[in-house]
Amino acid sequence: MSQAETKPFDYLIHNVNVATMANGTDYGLINNACVGVKSGVIRFIGTQEQLVSPNNLEQNAENLVNAHNQWLTPGLIDCHTHLVYGGNRANEFEMRLNGAAYEEIAKAGGGILSTVRATRSASEQDLFDSASKRLKSLLKEGLTTIEIKSGYGLDTESEIKMLKVAKRLGKEFPVRVATTFLGAHALPEEYKERGDDYIDLICNEMLPTIAELELADAVDAFCENIGFSYQQTKKVFETAKRLGLPVKLHAEQLTDQSGAGLAADYNALSADHLEYLSQDSIEKMAKSGTVAVLLPGAFYFLRETKLPPIQALRDANVPMAIATDSNPGTSPAESILLMLNMACTFFRMTPLESLQGVTINAAKALGLQKEIGSIEIGKKADMVLWDIEHPNQLSYQLGGSNWTRTFKS
Amino acid sequence: MSQAETKPFDYLIHNVNVATMANGTDYGLINNACVGVKSGVIRFIGTQEQLVSPNNLEQNAENLVNAHNQWLTPGLIDCHTHLVYGGNRANEFEMRLNGAAYEEIAKAGGGILSTVRATRSASEQDLFDSASKRLKSLLKEGLTTIEIKSGYGLDTESEIKMLKVAKRLGKEFPVRVATTFLGAHALPEEYKERGDDYIDLICNEMLPTIAELELADAVDAFCENIGFSYQQTKKVFETAKRLGLPVKLHAEQLTDQSGAGLAADYNALSADHLEYLSQDSIEKMAKSGTVAVLLPGAFYFLRETKLPPIQALRDANVPMAIATDSNPGTSPAESILLMLNMACTFFRMTPLESLQGVTINAAKALGLQKEIGSIEIGKKADMVLWDIEHPNQLSYQLGGSNWTRTFKS
Ligand SMILES: [Zn+2]
Ligand SMILES: [Zn+2]
Repeated sequence: MSQAETKPFDYLIHNVNVATMANGTDYGLINNACVGVKSGVIRFIGTQEQLVSPNNLEQNAENLVNAHNQWLTPGLIDCHTHLVYGGNRANEFEMRLNGAAYEEIAKAGGGILSTVRATRSASEQDLFDSASKRLKSLLKEGLTTIEIKSGYGLDTESEIKMLKVAKRLGKEFPVRVATTFLGAHALPEEYKERGDDYIDLICNEMLPTIAELELADAVDAFCENIGFSYQQTKKVFETAKRLGLPVKLHAEQLTDQSGAGLAADYNALSADHLEYLSQDSIEKMAKSGTVAVLLPGAFYFLRETKLPPIQALRDANVPMAIATDSNPGTSPAESILLMLNMACTFFRMTPLESLQGVTINAAKALGLQKEIGSIEIGKKADMVLWDIEHPNQLSYQLGGSNWTRTFKS
Repeated sequence: MSQAETKPFDYLIHNVNVATMANGTDYGLINNACVGVKSGVIRFIGTQEQLVSPNNLEQNAENLVNAHNQWLTPGLIDCHTHLVYGGNRANEFEMRLNGAAYEEIAKAGGGILSTVRATRSASEQDLFDSASKRLKSLLKEGLTTIEIKSGYGLDTESEIKMLKVAKRLGKEFPVRVATTFLGAHALPEEYKERGDDYIDLICNEMLPTIAELELADAVDAFCENIGFSYQQTKKVFETAKRLGLPVKLHAEQLTDQSGAGLAADYNALSADHLEYLSQDSIEKMAKSGTVAVLLPGAFYFLRETKLPPIQALRDANVPMAIATDSNPGTSPAESILLMLNMACTFFRMTPLESLQGVTINAAKALGLQKEIGSIEIGKKADMVLWDIEHPNQLSYQLGGSNWTRTFKS
């Protein structure tokens, strides 16, 4: 056996400052550390003195990465996106700012159903290409995992098309993709005023087919007075439960529908948005371990003024995650770092909470906290190197990026 | 004479959609156009049929650039930044979000004077390196001109150091730098409670020295109850006038000090911030042709709620520009595109107004409208190619960038 084969690590990052994000209470800072990776798994975190061969770094790993005193964090996780869609809504955005009324925009073919039309008529390749552009922006900010929802197809074939594109993004880019079926996103034109019939379609055809094809890691719905009711959402959740799929929910964005409480009743991975969340639902979320996913991009873009109950979530020890909600109508966002700043600026979350929100707590929101979300022995080597002086800079900066490189398992 | 030497253009961009931004009333859209450049100057804008050799593109230019139907806009101009400074204020940002009071932060060495200390003690190379990082982020968004202010030195030597660094950025990067002397930014510690004495230092020593060294293209001040008074500002403007330097002003950000009106009295290039701008000052600005520079990043970061009087500025035909105000205390911004979105979202400016705000009107704010800011025959060939379907997308997107490449004269 050659000596090369006996080296303990495939690569060793040395001369690095680490924010492990492992303990849930602080950044888990380790200065001047070494991190060793073997077969895509983190196998060593410590000082150079603690290595098997402390005096000859090269004996420890096939490849050495001198981080030159930069900072290493877990790979960033965007746990709520609608990244795959046809078209964009820039014209609608411009019309509104030029004073067009809602009706006028609807008449000009605006609103969510315009995205449904564009998504239905787009080819898989078109959808892949447009989502790729957005994904590339996110990857340049250290993203290593992204959740992508369906929900602009609203028929079985188009929903499948969206989820296939999401899966393909995960194959062709160095990123882990978690897919979510969001058939109950909006009511398609052909089911106008027949919401219950559409829910039946979801439960009897769409969801079973998609589960059979193993295209979805979770099931989501939009529980809102302009979306689906508590009872309709419950029906979707029942079906998901029967099929063995975890659930999550767009809840309490515009009004309190007790959606987050319902989600908690079904042990949801997360309840998302939550501006109008009640104390009752907070307590249910705390009991079920449901993550609160906060979406400052949509809050900003919609000029919402009602803040999610951050202090109450803190007090109840509900884990808080942050995501882009990247979508053409209410958050055309391609920056996860910007969401950190907005979480601090709008929601008064701390830089630590913001970073937890795109690392360990975002992993929890996807049920992946045993594999990713922190720099710990045994976890996947999804890590990012930053040219910063402290991890609080990731929240402080407004646009731009101090990203240096990404390590992807 | 060889045929090559007779080709009319150095390069010809063809198969391109152009937003000329030339006429002040719309985007100046030209679809499927050609743009020819010779010696860094735009010499042709038109259809392929209008070229001297319409049937053989190669005979028209040394180099052909096929834009593949992408969009060309004027190079973006950031007309108000404090890009050069020492340190950052991420710790202060974090302390505040963790509930620290103003006193505590001041005690821990926070606030603008902490940036003054860091800037004074930084070497020219340090300042160049840290500003370079920020500049690179902006260049990736199509920036071709940037204004950079002094104002963290607050003594003659340190102010000169800052302006030299700003000039050097313009030499080492493909960007035009306009420098502004902002000695009257804050009162340095050694002049505590001796504001008039500091203004004397500016007028008798700093400004004449800097004018002599030709380090400043303009002179600025911070007229505010926490900055300098109307009378003190007037003294600085008088000195600038005597030295033949144009002026601009940080005005009406926190209170109405009639600063913008004073600036207009001195034919200022611009008055900047303007949340508390009065109708009286608007009318003076309209008469003097002073540009209103709006800074949505600072508005956002400070969670300001008082909006600048956009409609009144529109009604008075005061040109509106937008800038990052990039600075460590109130707008740690490294994205000009984000400012377009924030101008639309917060200020309800239209995507057209936002784009005018970083092209033709930003050029006016720097007194450079005869050279740059629009795609017109005779202007410098500062242009950007974007992978978009319409220029309104530049304002619609939230983070990320559809930048393809920059042409810099
Ligand atoms: Zn969503
Ligand atoms: Zn400023």
